Amino acid sequence: MKESYQEYQRLCEEALSARVFPGAEEENLEAMRYSLLGGGKRLRGVLVLASCVCAGGEAERALPAACAVEMVHAYSLIHDDLPAMDNDVLRRGKPTCHVRFGEAQAILAGDGLLTEAFSVLAESYEAPVGAGLVALLSRAAGPGGMVGGQVLDMSPPREADLAWLRKMVGKKTGCLIEASVEMGLKCAGAGEECMACGRRYGIHLGRAFQIVDDILDVVGDEKTLGKSIGKDAAEEKRTFVTLLGLEEARRQALEETGHAVSALEPFGERGAFLSRLARDMLDRIY
Amino acid sequence: MKESYQEYQRLCEEALSARVFPGAEEENLEAMRYSLLGGGKRLRGVLVLASCVCAGGEAERALPAACAVEMVHAYSLIHDDLPAMDNDVLRRGKPTCHVRFGEAQAILAGDGLLTEAFSVLAESYEAPVGAGLVALLSRAAGPGGMVGGQVLDMSPPREADLAWLRKMVGKKTGCLIEASVEMGLKCAGAGEECMACGRRYGIHLGRAFQIVDDILDVVGDEKTLGKSIGKDAAEEKRTFVTLLGLEEARRQALEETGHAVSALEPFGERGAFLSRLARDMLDRIY
Repeated sequence: MKESYQEYQRLCEEALSARVFPGAEEENLEAMRYSLLGGGKRLRGVLVLASCVCAGGEAERALPAACAVEMVHAYSLIHDDLPAMDNDVLRRGKPTCHVRFGEAQAILAGDGLLTEAFSVLAESYEAPVGAGLVALLSRAAGPGGMVGGQVLDMSPPREADLAWLRKMVGKKTGCLIEASVEMGLKCAGAGEECMACGRRYGIHLGRAFQIVDDILDVVGDEKTLGKSIGKDAAEEKRTFVTLLGLEEARRQALEETGHAVSALEPFGERGAFLSRLARDMLDRIY
Repeated sequence: MKESYQEYQRLCEEALSARVFPGAEEENLEAMRYSLLGGGKRLRGVLVLASCVCAGGEAERALPAACAVEMVHAYSLIHDDLPAMDNDVLRRGKPTCHVRFGEAQAILAGDGLLTEAFSVLAESYEAPVGAGLVALLSRAAGPGGMVGGQVLDMSPPREADLAWLRKMVGKKTGCLIEASVEMGLKCAGAGEECMACGRRYGIHLGRAFQIVDDILDVVGDEKTLGKSIGKDAAEEKRTFVTLLGLEEARRQALEETGHAVSALEPFGERGAFLSRLARDMLDRIY
């Protein structure tokens, strides 16, 4: 297979559509699928698949893990959009889950997706890999990771500085991106040394991702992005752009991308796709 | 060790108090511990420990699993109490989590407890047991189990009949009680035959538990129960008492308890504690 983002994305999308939620109630199923299958770039799922291939595994082997990560990502968006949180009414041009199904069903759709993700991991892999994947995903998504990032985001200090912003986005976004890479490698049975390189790639890619995201909110094109821009500024949110200025933010995105690409060196040619993915991300801000 | 409910309960309580949530933010940690350590009967945790002992294991071996089940139970109470769900302001005589910490932090405390429960399982046991426990707990708590039960409870049909009520409480309450028994047995390395008996015990105990709970809401003593009674009637909720009448509800509780006790026969003397637990539960309505 020629590796391409579109091909990996298509694999994720198909696998997610094919997932059944055994015994789920109709209303809950509809709400979960509404948010899970609403499109999206599938960055995390693609990272799982590509990381597995990078370590010498087959992409198919990593599909359940890719689904689990995308399910956790979808749950986090549903809960973050709730009125008590960011109170967002639109996501990818569609009404958010609670607008469409009501708050109670949205909370339960999120709870259902999060819980089901662990069923998928525990039931799709032989025990040592499955247990390892559960540990990676739950640590990345839990209180020390994504949940903690949202906690920080909900009550920013009056003077949110760069250190705080890095910590917040590192937990809120970075942990899951990092875990996606590690999970893909684990599916391929990668050893500790390999995992450490992947972790380093994931950390720097995650940082670059967030800086790029903040820059695109300022300079991006609404049509290509599929979301409204200028939102951060309107909400007076602290971002890498407001704290660093546009030029320094660009420079740091470039630097982080460089670190991410370097981390892939031990993988040689096999790291080419992940390296290109990092550089393509950067290209969007130039 | 002489088996006693109080002793098992104490073990659970201590293990829960001792749990650290690595990397958790202070506010999130406080909210999680507020709801997790608020007392409670620890029925699910006790069932995990006692089932492990019943199958020849040590209670200590099952402590992480007992904690995980209690964390999932605590999360479910936090989310069920939210304004968008049951909108409860008091639980065990204390303000509910969202009243105390606000809605956003309550949602995140629930998300954090649920996610951390799977970390605990994946990291406390050797892989085959850990993966098996994750599968049992996630299936019981997910869309086909507890989440599904809450979905049903949120939109009851106009004419909620006995079949609907049985399905709803079976998912909302029964699944986790059943899983508690299965998880305890799995910690002890029980075989399939043993698991099947435990499952049967868990199913009937769960049914008896719910009928008894409904009866106590009518005939119970507020002081002993630690919660207000007559709430179901005031809310015109369909319960086993409203659908069956008090006498028939009592008879069915007795019948279910009988089935639960019979299921323990293969365990012989080892099943004595679980058998007494079922009978003690029944005694509360006589």
